[in-house]
Amino acid sequence: MLAVAVEEARTGYREGGVPVGAALFGPDGRLLGRGRNRRVQDGDPSLHAETDAFRAAGRRAAYHGTTLVTTLSPCWYCAGLVRQFGIPRLVVGEARTFPGQHDWLAEHGVEVTVLDDPTCQLLMTEFIRTRPELWQEDIGGEPRGGR
Amino acid sequence: MLAVAVEEARTGYREGGVPVGAALFGPDGRLLGRGRNRRVQDGDPSLHAETDAFRAAGRRAAYHGTTLVTTLSPCWYCAGLVRQFGIPRLVVGEARTFPGQHDWLAEHGVEVTVLDDPTCQLLMTEFIRTRPELWQEDIGGEPRGGR
Repeated sequence: MLAVAVEEARTGYREGGVPVGAALFGPDGRLLGRGRNRRVQDGDPSLHAETDAFRAAGRRAAYHGTTLVTTLSPCWYCAGLVRQFGIPRLVVGEARTFPGQHDWLAEHGVEVTVLDDPTCQLLMTEFIRTRPELWQEDIGGEPRGGR
Repeated sequence: MLAVAVEEARTGYREGGVPVGAALFGPDGRLLGRGRNRRVQDGDPSLHAETDAFRAAGRRAAYHGTTLVTTLSPCWYCAGLVRQFGIPRLVVGEARTFPGQHDWLAEHGVEVTVLDDPTCQLLMTEFIRTRPELWQEDIGGEPRGGR
């Protein structure tokens, strides 16, 4: 399932955007929606990869049995999305380049799997090195740690 | 400042949508962006009022001194937005019809003002009474309480 999210992240990178990708899968493993960060491409700061995949999945009465896959540990905004809509499973490509809120979600009942995917890490490491100001803009200007 | 958010909520109600409105203001009180829930209008579940107003304000390097005004206490998704992007002030029209996460934000340093606005309450009370299934869909199918 990570492959779809990585493909989105790579596309975002080629487009000059923030290289984070995500995908939402149904209980049967069917792809419901996929997306990537679109801050640069659409000039839209509200579209992180996770929210873009969620949007692409369209309107749904509930999210029982779904899995959200993201190349990078989710920020507070995207973690809030997962919690509010009761998405029960989260797969994270990597959490080394950004200390996201996957632990907070695990504490609140989400089944979290953190991979240590080298492709996801390489994309983000290269991006942060070459576009530090864009990265800071995308996460609100400074780290937001704690709980 | 609440008047702009209420106007958005009323427009959303007339459009057959979820009647929640929001607006983001700059340090000088200038309106940066305004918006409303667009689940019905755009078929887009990712656009709560707060995220729509945030989107309308466009790309910004930081949110120092800004104030987010919303007619209804924010859900986890929108509260996560406020926390991640460091929006320092939140004005809530009412928190009676939905027990949102404004207390969680206050605990994490956001200056929160909760009004008890009768217009905001009336809009939501009427909406929840007439469209309970749409309201449940908009908040993920069931209440998400706790911290």
